[in-house]
Amino acid sequence: MGTLIPIDDADDPRIAEFRDIRERDLTGRQGRFIAEGTVVLRMLAAAHAAGRGVAAEKLLLLKNRVAGISDLLEVLPPDVPVHVAERDVLNAIVGFDLHRGVLALGRRLEVSPVDAFVATLPAEALVVVGCNISNHDNIGAIFRNAAAFGADAVLLDETCCDPLYRKSLRVSVGSVLSVPFRREGSALQLLTALAERNFSVWALSPNGATDIRAVQPSARTALVLGTEGEGLPAEILGRFHSARVPQMAGLDSLNVATATGIALYQIASAMKRV
Amino acid sequence: MGTLIPIDDADDPRIAEFRDIRERDLTGRQGRFIAEGTVVLRMLAAAHAAGRGVAAEKLLLLKNRVAGISDLLEVLPPDVPVHVAERDVLNAIVGFDLHRGVLALGRRLEVSPVDAFVATLPAEALVVVGCNISNHDNIGAIFRNAAAFGADAVLLDETCCDPLYRKSLRVSVGSVLSVPFRREGSALQLLTALAERNFSVWALSPNGATDIRAVQPSARTALVLGTEGEGLPAEILGRFHSARVPQMAGLDSLNVATATGIALYQIASAMKRV
Repeated sequence: MGTLIPIDDADDPRIAEFRDIRERDLTGRQGRFIAEGTVVLRMLAAAHAAGRGVAAEKLLLLKNRVAGISDLLEVLPPDVPVHVAERDVLNAIVGFDLHRGVLALGRRLEVSPVDAFVATLPAEALVVVGCNISNHDNIGAIFRNAAAFGADAVLLDETCCDPLYRKSLRVSVGSVLSVPFRREGSALQLLTALAERNFSVWALSPNGATDIRAVQPSARTALVLGTEGEGLPAEILGRFHSARVPQMAGLDSLNVATATGIALYQIASAMKRV
Repeated sequence: MGTLIPIDDADDPRIAEFRDIRERDLTGRQGRFIAEGTVVLRMLAAAHAAGRGVAAEKLLLLKNRVAGISDLLEVLPPDVPVHVAERDVLNAIVGFDLHRGVLALGRRLEVSPVDAFVATLPAEALVVVGCNISNHDNIGAIFRNAAAFGADAVLLDETCCDPLYRKSLRVSVGSVLSVPFRREGSALQLLTALAERNFSVWALSPNGATDIRAVQPSARTALVLGTEGEGLPAEILGRFHSARVPQMAGLDSLNVATATGIALYQIASAMKRV
């Protein structure tokens, strides 16, 4: 751990990236992202150390939180600046009352394109594919479930929202930093790339043809998730296998995060991963 | 449907219960609750008609929403007043921009105490028990999942938050109005009442003794859920069966809503309910 840098002025340019966090959430950050809370910071430090496509750039901590996370600060490279502030200054910087008192600025590193990435997946693999998931909570929940059931990767089409968005990252409990992912291209491009690499592709839908309990996964299996309202486009449901989570008739479909959890639980069980 | 009552003044005493909804959420309503959106209103009308422990008292609608829900208004008893307002008046009443434009005031009717209620459950029954669930989203999600997998009832201990709270009701997609529930007493009292009525009681915990996939449910089965952080008290885990949802080691536990969905999916499957 390097020297702690005290910040006494909310306008200090060294912590400018943490100014008015919520407003910046809306405008994007050109490859930077904000990690919030001790658990997510821990995942960021681990991902940085393992070279998993992200780096920690700088930290901003509530002064009285430093001692409690000193082990974590030791893991970070010594050239990552650690700024500390008292509560009034910290709140003036971020623009609201930041209870947790732990923030990091992360940077996304250059990653291989999705085709090359898919080529690196193991012979036995479980991949989650998100199609048009625009809700940050749902994206975060999908990663949390993917991690819980040992998925090897999450692939998102270009219409999905960014999983490194602060709220998604928080809801994922940092899993966005531990489960490898790519976000590019159309869902059809992603699924075609997977099918060409011997993945059996199962699209989840309330009207899926096969009860998920009857699905026999292949050594390489991909599970495709759409939005709650519209579901997956007919183009995808028609071209690949489709599966449904059984439920009582006449109700709205399950929440997408819960449906994902159930489908992953079932498929990971059938693949003997849990 | 009775006559539509136009409201031109946000201070009109006839719609006083809809004033500043969010603030009132925090202070309680003495047996009244707010139902928001068409889907929830539909569930309220159905519950009212079926005598399921609630009544619709009055409605407040955005004027241009009336035509789209006329079928629903026909279902409501003619003595339920239907107030209509233009958007600016409606927003001034509720205190924020109410996109959905559909609100109802509901009233909770007197219900039988939990012991008497448990005595009325069928010979084959699946019951969900919530213990110390204080998050409104989680309460709502539990009801949504309970409905999806055909649970006969939800029992909540007195430390759980109110499922008729506006946000819980919305997250449940109105299921709080379709799945019978009680909220009273301690978790131990509830579970003892169930055990005395021949329910096998399974407490869900990340450290549960039995893998949920190996649970053989009885004709009458109760599934007990605690909070994400603390989990269920040792007193309950020690006295009843405990089950775990399998997942990768070394991670935070699943979100309580997702864990509930998975456990209900598994148990409802084993009971051949779905």
